[in-house]
Amino acid sequence: MKTLTWEKNTLILLDQTKLPTQEEYLQCSSWRQVEEAIKVLAVRGAPAIGVAAAYAVVLAALELKKETDFRQKLVDVIITLDKARPTAVNLHWGLERMNQVIQEHRDASVETLIEALEDEAKFIYAEDVDVNKCIGRFGAEALIARIRKDKFTVLTHCNAGALATADIGTALGVIRNLHGKGRIANVFADETRPLLQGARLTATELQADKIPVTLITDNMAAWVMKTRQVDAVIVGADRITANGDTANKIGTYGVALAAKVHGIPFFVAAPISTFDLSMKSGEEIPIEERNHDEVRNIQGVQTALKNTPVFNPAFDVTPHEYITAIITQDGVIDHPDTLSIAEFFRNREE
Amino acid sequence: MKTLTWEKNTLILLDQTKLPTQEEYLQCSSWRQVEEAIKVLAVRGAPAIGVAAAYAVVLAALELKKETDFRQKLVDVIITLDKARPTAVNLHWGLERMNQVIQEHRDASVETLIEALEDEAKFIYAEDVDVNKCIGRFGAEALIARIRKDKFTVLTHCNAGALATADIGTALGVIRNLHGKGRIANVFADETRPLLQGARLTATELQADKIPVTLITDNMAAWVMKTRQVDAVIVGADRITANGDTANKIGTYGVALAAKVHGIPFFVAAPISTFDLSMKSGEEIPIEERNHDEVRNIQGVQTALKNTPVFNPAFDVTPHEYITAIITQDGVIDHPDTLSIAEFFRNREE
Repeated sequence: MKTLTWEKNTLILLDQTKLPTQEEYLQCSSWRQVEEAIKVLAVRGAPAIGVAAAYAVVLAALELKKETDFRQKLVDVIITLDKARPTAVNLHWGLERMNQVIQEHRDASVETLIEALEDEAKFIYAEDVDVNKCIGRFGAEALIARIRKDKFTVLTHCNAGALATADIGTALGVIRNLHGKGRIANVFADETRPLLQGARLTATELQADKIPVTLITDNMAAWVMKTRQVDAVIVGADRITANGDTANKIGTYGVALAAKVHGIPFFVAAPISTFDLSMKSGEEIPIEERNHDEVRNIQGVQTALKNTPVFNPAFDVTPHEYITAIITQDGVIDHPDTLSIAEFFRNREE
Repeated sequence: MKTLTWEKNTLILLDQTKLPTQEEYLQCSSWRQVEEAIKVLAVRGAPAIGVAAAYAVVLAALELKKETDFRQKLVDVIITLDKARPTAVNLHWGLERMNQVIQEHRDASVETLIEALEDEAKFIYAEDVDVNKCIGRFGAEALIARIRKDKFTVLTHCNAGALATADIGTALGVIRNLHGKGRIANVFADETRPLLQGARLTATELQADKIPVTLITDNMAAWVMKTRQVDAVIVGADRITANGDTANKIGTYGVALAAKVHGIPFFVAAPISTFDLSMKSGEEIPIEERNHDEVRNIQGVQTALKNTPVFNPAFDVTPHEYITAIITQDGVIDHPDTLSIAEFFRNREE
């Protein structure tokens, strides 16, 4: 299974809506196909969306190269792609980088620009591979330093794995690294309604790597923390604001509350591109509300009356007070807040 | 829709596994059919299980009446039925009452005993109707006294409604009573994985009564409490121990934690028959663990790999510290603990 592959001017995306029962791939040769794949969550996970959007810009450039106003039309595509999903900031971050390439090649030929765009998309992809490995290493070190046990039981929510990134994943990158060191006793995976990324993706990924996993429904997480020994919670992120408030898949907030009550450390693993320092706190983060049928149906099977009113936020925000540490490719931010995050970014620039 | 009906020596059970898309009834003319219906959750909800089990004993008596050792065989049936589901104590309570009738009619004729058993089952049913109405009235009073608002938004988990009882329900009995007084703004209903009693039953029941309801997935409850005005949580119960610890559908514990963090009062509505004063605390309550396919599938559709390891507890226990009050047919127990519960039962006997 390969989340994203770029091959002969085509972006090949694993159709994650079909997992785990079918392994099908979408051959995207137009940017509109990638936009649709992002919208329906055929490709999902904040880092993977950033990479996919970058390649979508390359596809758009190939499609539009003979048009008049080529550059302007390309920027219009970027603006459209930026609206495909509102919460994960990595989408915007990837598109911003592609836009900068366009601005830097204002006087270059179309062919040169397209080459530069393709190089940048490949670079964003390659960078994410490195980022994953670094997060895995730093995260494993952080957990080992804090938890005085030989083997850890970890709980995770949604999928911040290989299927959400270009490589081993963020939260699951940490778990994979720990497993490589023989330090994982078990991983509890919340199924993550409505779209079941935990059941369909995380459990499947971990089983493929022979990492011990136990699937639970979301409403079992607090009870598992109370009755089983859970040593840490680790999740990904879709946007982190300047004070450390973290948007992630709906349900993360409830897991964080339960972890706090049970004295279990709660870790967020995310690349630097997930930070949005333009926002002061989580209150500013736009929360995507998705189609109500996602709640009234499960994988196409009706579970409630067709006219039942529904609330379907796709994300929630965990306040920074609930987060023990944020693990990035450049190191770990303990007790994230405005000050510790500002200090981290200042040290990083030096 | 009628949860249970006794008609010409047949117990007619609404098959709740088929709701809301199909309204089908099971015609049970043998006790084994009722036992199976309890096991597969065709009939569910602690009070309804107690009533169904009582009628199952009547069916067994009719089936066994010509056998030698009739009384002994009937007691054996009661012992078997008592094991159909382990957590809800109302099952045991109903069967205990039927067993007492057998003991009291030791010297009566078979026909007289059967008549007495049928009377007792009908009495248990009629009693539950009254119990529901009293709980509804006391609960509404309790909420109105505590919440200084014209209209309340309430969150509930699983189904403690008409479909779980012989009448208007326990938690939903309170909500129905409040709605009758024009005091309900909205009810958030957790869908309640794995078996979706919230989506399939609670939302359906409330919509049928034109009570405003919004369906959410379980992992949205904490976020709804943070971002919407939730005035109270109200749930049913499967067993309440002498110190007020309360077993209820899995997920209740996490909801109680989130309610506490957000300063939202958390009410349990349950008949006296749900109390098990023989147990000191929730640690003694047996928790049913059900088939793992309930988590790997939803309504028959596969959501995870077939060999994914699963943990599937059907209930959890909410410690009494998280419970604002327990609402019974005989009044309300504020701040339930060993002392307040002992006092309540002493006053009740007087």
